[in-house]
Amino acid sequence: MTPSAAATQDRAAPDALERLVVETQPGMNKVNALILDRASSHVELVPEIARYLIDAGGKRLRPMLTIASAMLFGGGTGSEVNFAAAVEFMHNATLLHDDVVDESAMRRGRAAARMRWGNQASVLVGDFLLGQAFTMMVETGNLEALGVISRAATIIAEGEVLQLAKARDLSATRADYSNVIHAKTAMLFEAATEVGAMAGGADPAGRQALKSFGTELGFAFQLVDDVLDYRGEAGRLGKNVGDDLREGKMTLPVILALEDANPAERDIIVRALGQPETGEAELATVRAIFAKYDTLGRTSLEARRHAEAARAALSPLHAGPMRAHLADIADFTVARAY
Amino acid sequence: MTPSAAATQDRAAPDALERLVVETQPGMNKVNALILDRASSHVELVPEIARYLIDAGGKRLRPMLTIASAMLFGGGTGSEVNFAAAVEFMHNATLLHDDVVDESAMRRGRAAARMRWGNQASVLVGDFLLGQAFTMMVETGNLEALGVISRAATIIAEGEVLQLAKARDLSATRADYSNVIHAKTAMLFEAATEVGAMAGGADPAGRQALKSFGTELGFAFQLVDDVLDYRGEAGRLGKNVGDDLREGKMTLPVILALEDANPAERDIIVRALGQPETGEAELATVRAIFAKYDTLGRTSLEARRHAEAARAALSPLHAGPMRAHLADIADFTVARAY
Repeated sequence: MTPSAAATQDRAAPDALERLVVETQPGMNKVNALILDRASSHVELVPEIARYLIDAGGKRLRPMLTIASAMLFGGGTGSEVNFAAAVEFMHNATLLHDDVVDESAMRRGRAAARMRWGNQASVLVGDFLLGQAFTMMVETGNLEALGVISRAATIIAEGEVLQLAKARDLSATRADYSNVIHAKTAMLFEAATEVGAMAGGADPAGRQALKSFGTELGFAFQLVDDVLDYRGEAGRLGKNVGDDLREGKMTLPVILALEDANPAERDIIVRALGQPETGEAELATVRAIFAKYDTLGRTSLEARRHAEAARAALSPLHAGPMRAHLADIADFTVARAY
Repeated sequence: MTPSAAATQDRAAPDALERLVVETQPGMNKVNALILDRASSHVELVPEIARYLIDAGGKRLRPMLTIASAMLFGGGTGSEVNFAAAVEFMHNATLLHDDVVDESAMRRGRAAARMRWGNQASVLVGDFLLGQAFTMMVETGNLEALGVISRAATIIAEGEVLQLAKARDLSATRADYSNVIHAKTAMLFEAATEVGAMAGGADPAGRQALKSFGTELGFAFQLVDDVLDYRGEAGRLGKNVGDDLREGKMTLPVILALEDANPAERDIIVRALGQPETGEAELATVRAIFAKYDTLGRTSLEARRHAEAARAALSPLHAGPMRAHLADIADFTVARAY
C-alpha cells in the first residue's frame, strides 16, 4: 500500500457507507417501497425474477446517491423518490442484460437469474424494468430529468456495445477503456446524482457539481471493480475471480500489462484472454505478470485520482454534513481496492 | 374462402397499403431521415446492426399509422415525426430481443441479426434503440404521449414474458392468448395511433377512437400473423413456416385444435409442439389436423372480427379520404390471410 493510499483509507472511515445509509434512510424507505410496488405484475414470472435480483440486495448505492444529492440541496419535493427507483431499475435491467451478454453464472453471490430462468426471461424482464423506470420518470412530470435519464440509457447501451466490440482486441487503448467505462458505468452514477440535485432544487452550478461528482465517482467505482475482478475473493465479489479475463474484457489492468509485457508474457496473457476455460493456474500466471508491472496498483491509483476529482467537484458547494458524507463515499469506493 | 371473406377482399383493394404510403409520404420522408439519423453512433457496431434491421425494410406500418393518425386530425405540429420514429425504434428493439428470445434464424427474409453479430449485440443494440426512442419522445416535450409510450414499453415486455411462461403450456386458454397478443402486439399499434392522434390535436373522443382503432388493428394483425405462420410461404413470410409450433407458442390455431382434437391427434400436436426438430412431415400432419377442425379459418374469422371493430372505431369521426385509407388498412391486414 502506498502512503497516500493509507491516508485515503484513514480518511474514509470504513463506516462511510453505513453513515450514508443512516442519513438517507427515510427517503430510501420510500424508494424501497416503490421498487417493490413497481416490480409487481399480473404476469407472475416478472416479479419472481425482478425480486430475485432485487432481494439479492446489492448496496442500492445509486438510488442512495440520488436521495443524498437531493438532500444536499435541502431535500426534494418527492420526485427524488421516483428518480431513485428509476435509476435502480435501470441498473437492474442492465445487470439482467449484462449477465446474458457476458454469459455470467453468478451475480451478487448467487446464481445469475439467467441460470434459473434462462436468457429469454432475463432479456424480457430487463425490458420490463426499463419500461417501468421510464414510467416512474414520466410520473414526476420533469422533462429535463427525463432527458438526462433517456440519454443515459442510450449511452449505457452504446458503452456496452463498445466493450463487446473491443473484447479480445489487443489494440484496445487506455482511451478505449476510458470511453467504455464512462458510458457503461459512470453515466448512470452521473445521471443518479444529477437528477437528485435537480429534485433537490439545485441551481445550475450545483447541478453541474453533482453531475461531475457522479461521473468521477462512477469512474472510480468501475476502476476498482476491474481491480477486484483479479484481486478479490469470490465470496465477497459475488462473482468469480478472473471472469473479466475469461470474457476477454480489455480492462485497464490488461491494457497496462500488454503495454509492458515481453513477448513471452504477452503470449501468456493473449492465450488466457477470452478463454472461458482459463483455470486457476493460468489465472495465477497472469496475475504474476500483472504484479510484475504493478498493473493492479496503477489501476487503483487511477481510481484514487477519480475519487479525488469527485471530492473536488463538491468543494464549491456549501460545507455541511451531507457534503462530507458524499465526499467520504468517494474515498470509501476506492478503499475497497486495498 | 367464405363469401364474407371474399367481400372483405373486394372492399380492401390490394392497393390499400400503397395508397397509405402515398398519402403519408411527406411525413414518412421526415420519419425515415430521423430514423437514419438516430440509428447513428460513434460506436460503429450500433448503426451497422441497427441499419441491417432497418434496411431490411418491413412495411414501417406502425410509424405510418402514427403519421396518418395525425393527418386525420388536420396534421401535426411536427411532434408526430418524433413519435413515429420512436414507435418504429421500439418495434425494432422488440424484434432484436424477440429473435434472441425465440432463437430465430430468420427475420424479414434474411439471417436474423443475432445470427450475424450474436445474441449479445442484439440485446444491447435493442437497448440502444429503446433509449433513443425515449430520447426522441422527450424532445417533443409531450409528457402525456411519453406516458403512453412508456406504459406501452412495460406492457409489451410483460406480454412477451407471459408468452414465454405459457409456451408449451397445454392448459393455455383463448383468454391467455388474447392477453398475450393484446400486450405484445396490439399495445404498440394502439400507442402508435393514439400518440399520432395526440400530435394531430385530436379531442378526447378522437384520441379514444384512434386508440381503439389501433388496438383492434393490432389484434387483427397478430391473428393473421399466427395464421400465416402455418399457412404462408417462407419466401413471403420472411421466416420459416411452422416456427411458432417449433417454439411451442400457444397461438389460437393450436389452442382451438387442442380443444377439439381426439387423443391421437392431441398426441401428434403435443409431440411436435416446442420441438425445434419438428420437420416438414410432422408439420404437414399437424396442419391436416388444423384443417380438419378449421382452426386456421376460425382464427382468420377472429381476425376479421377485429378488423371490423377497427373500422367501426373510426365511424364516429368525420368521413374523409384519410379515414377511408385507415379503414381500408384494417381490411388489407386481414386480406393477407386469404
